[in-house]
Amino acid sequence: MILYPHVDVNEKGHLTLGGVDCLSLASEYGTPLYLIDTDAVRENCRIYREAMRKYFGVDSYPAYASKALCFSGIYPVIKEEGLGADCVSGGEIYTALMAGFPAEKIFFHGSNKTRREICEALDARIGCFVVDNEEELELLNDLARERGVVQNILLRITPGIDPHTHKYVSTGRIDSKFGSAIPTGAAESIVASALKKNNLNLEGFHSHIGSQIFDAEPFVKEAEVLATFMADMNEKYGCGCTVLDLGGGIGVPYTKYDRRVDRAAVIKEMAEALKAVFRERGTELPRVILEPGRSIVADAGVTLYTVGSVKRLPGMRTYVSVDGGMTDDPRYALYSSRYTAVIADRACEEASELVTIAGRCCESGDLLGEELELQIPKAGDILAFLTTGAYNYSMASNYNRVPRPPIVTVGKGKADLAVMRESYCDLIKNDIL
Amino acid sequence: MILYPHVDVNEKGHLTLGGVDCLSLASEYGTPLYLIDTDAVRENCRIYREAMRKYFGVDSYPAYASKALCFSGIYPVIKEEGLGADCVSGGEIYTALMAGFPAEKIFFHGSNKTRREICEALDARIGCFVVDNEEELELLNDLARERGVVQNILLRITPGIDPHTHKYVSTGRIDSKFGSAIPTGAAESIVASALKKNNLNLEGFHSHIGSQIFDAEPFVKEAEVLATFMADMNEKYGCGCTVLDLGGGIGVPYTKYDRRVDRAAVIKEMAEALKAVFRERGTELPRVILEPGRSIVADAGVTLYTVGSVKRLPGMRTYVSVDGGMTDDPRYALYSSRYTAVIADRACEEASELVTIAGRCCESGDLLGEELELQIPKAGDILAFLTTGAYNYSMASNYNRVPRPPIVTVGKGKADLAVMRESYCDLIKNDIL
Repeated sequence: MILYPHVDVNEKGHLTLGGVDCLSLASEYGTPLYLIDTDAVRENCRIYREAMRKYFGVDSYPAYASKALCFSGIYPVIKEEGLGADCVSGGEIYTALMAGFPAEKIFFHGSNKTRREICEALDARIGCFVVDNEEELELLNDLARERGVVQNILLRITPGIDPHTHKYVSTGRIDSKFGSAIPTGAAESIVASALKKNNLNLEGFHSHIGSQIFDAEPFVKEAEVLATFMADMNEKYGCGCTVLDLGGGIGVPYTKYDRRVDRAAVIKEMAEALKAVFRERGTELPRVILEPGRSIVADAGVTLYTVGSVKRLPGMRTYVSVDGGMTDDPRYALYSSRYTAVIADRACEEASELVTIAGRCCESGDLLGEELELQIPKAGDILAFLTTGAYNYSMASNYNRVPRPPIVTVGKGKADLAVMRESYCDLIKNDIL
Repeated sequence: MILYPHVDVNEKGHLTLGGVDCLSLASEYGTPLYLIDTDAVRENCRIYREAMRKYFGVDSYPAYASKALCFSGIYPVIKEEGLGADCVSGGEIYTALMAGFPAEKIFFHGSNKTRREICEALDARIGCFVVDNEEELELLNDLARERGVVQNILLRITPGIDPHTHKYVSTGRIDSKFGSAIPTGAAESIVASALKKNNLNLEGFHSHIGSQIFDAEPFVKEAEVLATFMADMNEKYGCGCTVLDLGGGIGVPYTKYDRRVDRAAVIKEMAEALKAVFRERGTELPRVILEPGRSIVADAGVTLYTVGSVKRLPGMRTYVSVDGGMTDDPRYALYSSRYTAVIADRACEEASELVTIAGRCCESGDLLGEELELQIPKAGDILAFLTTGAYNYSMASNYNRVPRPPIVTVGKGKADLAVMRESYCDLIKNDIL
């Protein structure tokens, strides 16, 4: 029944995360409540770190895609595990730096970085900019020149691969807001532009083909395409690029119907494809960066809710109302994402009822799931959603003026408050009365 | 070309809202920027207020549905225009009260109010609870008894009407998380329960059939069904109910392809239907409450963005990147909602290009619109989205750690900062380092 090694049931029949009783946590911190198991995060980091060292070489490493879950407390963990950080905004960079993350290990992404953000990132001596387009290239070079610095960059390249995932999270196709496409010639054109910029140092290329990909094949294809492009550019322009950042996207199982991907095996296959290309070209293997986000934090997260009313509509469905919803997790409203839910008080009981979990917002679309198998629910139960570590807290809103829940981290068997619950006062803190 | 009377173009060819130059505002406050024209809000309030007095009687009035747009500065406007307020959470009630809105004119809605919220609302002497279900009825009665008060309530009733709108915003069907349905007998059952509660005073009934409804017919049907139900309950149980709250839902045009609804005409038709029912029953016309939200604030809002890159993919599409996106307006990502966009610098030019507006988030689904007709865009342009007053600020998130934009109100030809832009510091204010 239980999907993840870190999620278990104790002798009282209560759900546990990282060995800590979820009911105790709900009682101490209230609900809704985000839980993040930092031991699980560390384990995921190590899977990437070790497989990448083994197959790509010792200089290769993963950079955590901060957008999956960004709060101060995540960065010490990421740093200790030897990862870099992929940041997509000034706000993510600020959070990372304030938490003591080293600037030189930050990759600054984004298809529309603002002038202010570029200035801030240059001033903070961010390690690498992943440049999306010609306008950004121009602006970044100008701002680097003003500062008398030479900034390391990668260029975001669109390989033209359709990874067969949800269109909202599919980014490698030519028809994308991201990057410059190889097939159209835009990619080569931006390489030529970049090489003319005196204050930019082109280290290599980046691509990201999408999210929730469960097969190795699109990643292997991506590795081949990017490696070939890099070898072509190095030969034609002598640009001496040595870095390939192949993004993230390895799928995470949310329900028992999803497969679990062997991440080390995918990395091994990617490495073999890369090696074949570079062997053929007679050049050195590049340093490889991968950018896992979801597969670092998703299965480390559990969200706890309290059940309010249970409304049984005979012949239709059973609505189970909880004290959170699309405000703390908009993924079902946005993508119809499926989850596994468990009544934390009676986690061992059979999941014998099919229910709809309704959020507390005054909006019919505020659902967390439909046709979910659940233990027979009743008012007052603590309901746990599993695999909520990624894109839950990070996408949360104050819709309906609902304060965002706190984050409690669990690790080594103990719990710590990492982000405080928002107060009503926080909601109006910027209002001018 | 211009959709709304409050949005115009000045002699410089710049877009104006409430007579104020949008380019000056973008320059003074930066982008992204939410603008709210309080004169337009007032005009919308008066349309409801006057039509309701005229057709329903002098005791009837609109209550503003706060969830459409909730910030401190909106409440003085709503109060001055004589409206009540519909609040759906402790956070909305807190905001209204802190802004000086009278507690007795607040209706507290929600399908899953928490115990804490119920206590707070009782202690604040909120005028009326709209009770959704039996569990809430029980809890509210207990908490009112503890306080020695008798709380006025309405019961939320599901009439069983399908208003033919987007399923996410359709709430009047029997298969809904909201309320108790008439056809199943649940509605009568909760009336019987309510009448047994000594600390609750049942004033009447509430229903809400959905959003973005452009025809009078579903509202007329709703009025008939609810009026009949109320008359039935008054006859059978002698409950003496005198209030009918018929919710909101009148549609707002977002593009030139949408119709503009004559709100006074819809109210007149609803009133005629009500009168027919009560004439037949030989009883007094009840006090009627309506709860417009979107149709009070939507067309009073404009959002300004700065264009970053413009990416023309021949044979595919043109991506126009802006410095906001699903973080300040998730409606396209959630509901594929369409808008009208205008380059504010050259608002008189013909909209001759079909474009996709891409937000700044690292997510392919971060779009604000596709196949939008726009003046030929270029980097640095100020892009205005019209009709963004409702469900933009209220649904905004910090996804990608993007700070939420400020709100500037314009009224009587002058602009005032109403909500300050979030700072990076705000993003980590609750983090424990």
